[in-house]
Amino acid sequence: MNATAQAPQIISKDNLLRHWQGHRALTRRVIEAFPEKEFFEFSIGGMRTFAQLTSELLAIASPALKGIVERDEKPYVENMDNGTTKADYLRKWDEATEEINKNWNLLDVADFNQKFNLFGQYEFPIIDNILYFIDNEIHHRGQGYVYLRALNIEPPFFWER
Amino acid sequence: MNATAQAPQIISKDNLLRHWQGHRALTRRVIEAFPEKEFFEFSIGGMRTFAQLTSELLAIASPALKGIVERDEKPYVENMDNGTTKADYLRKWDEATEEINKNWNLLDVADFNQKFNLFGQYEFPIIDNILYFIDNEIHHRGQGYVYLRALNIEPPFFWER
Repeated sequence: MNATAQAPQIISKDNLLRHWQGHRALTRRVIEAFPEKEFFEFSIGGMRTFAQLTSELLAIASPALKGIVERDEKPYVENMDNGTTKADYLRKWDEATEEINKNWNLLDVADFNQKFNLFGQYEFPIIDNILYFIDNEIHHRGQGYVYLRALNIEPPFFWER
Repeated sequence: MNATAQAPQIISKDNLLRHWQGHRALTRRVIEAFPEKEFFEFSIGGMRTFAQLTSELLAIASPALKGIVERDEKPYVENMDNGTTKADYLRKWDEATEEINKNWNLLDVADFNQKFNLFGQYEFPIIDNILYFIDNEIHHRGQGYVYLRALNIEPPFFWER
């Protein structure tokens, strides 16, 4: 047992993954809560639909973590062709969940404070980029909550993960 | 220098504070972006106004951190009387910013994984409660972004902190 294993952590690597995946599980329930048609068509104030926002989230989470693990600065590509049904999006979501779990295992605690130029564009310590993915998802999902409320649909409880 | 100081951290205590206060600075700019009247009156789908959401955020952040630092399980109290102008709310926001900075200094890295029954109600490791404050703020602020867009007002850039 070395000093690293003994030292107190603000947050452990396992807990940060659980935190992230807990948020992703909640976003999955928000996708499910949308009626099929409104997922692809509804928006407020000229903003993107929840399908478009979900495409952004899919373009970040798993590809970004893969880029980090492989230290591959390949550019950000937003695939807007994630399918034509909610089920298509949910399948991609679940694939990303698995890939994130796999790639997370390849990270070491010491990696998190190393700088990496994510997507050839965002040169920050890896922890900052990962917190950004989570925050960005919460931000857009909060927008999805307003869409659901405006559609008279009860969103999932925020604290359920 | 001991092992703790040497051990790699997923995130340092200083950086987590900077992360939190960065988000709080962005929320402050969202409050500023609202027209005076709409801050107190506008909402979508029967949701709370941004003034009411801000009151919730004020009732959590600084009082919760104080409760954590003092291990005081006093119950959650949402003060809905934060004033009648945006300037009143911004003053309370800035007071909370200072209090958070002061109380943060009283926390030790080892505290973050200790359980504490926040508000006599939320018994979790302290790190989980702190992440919840941040996430809850991002969530409600995301709703504020939709209000601003619906009011035809450009919100501040999400990535500016």
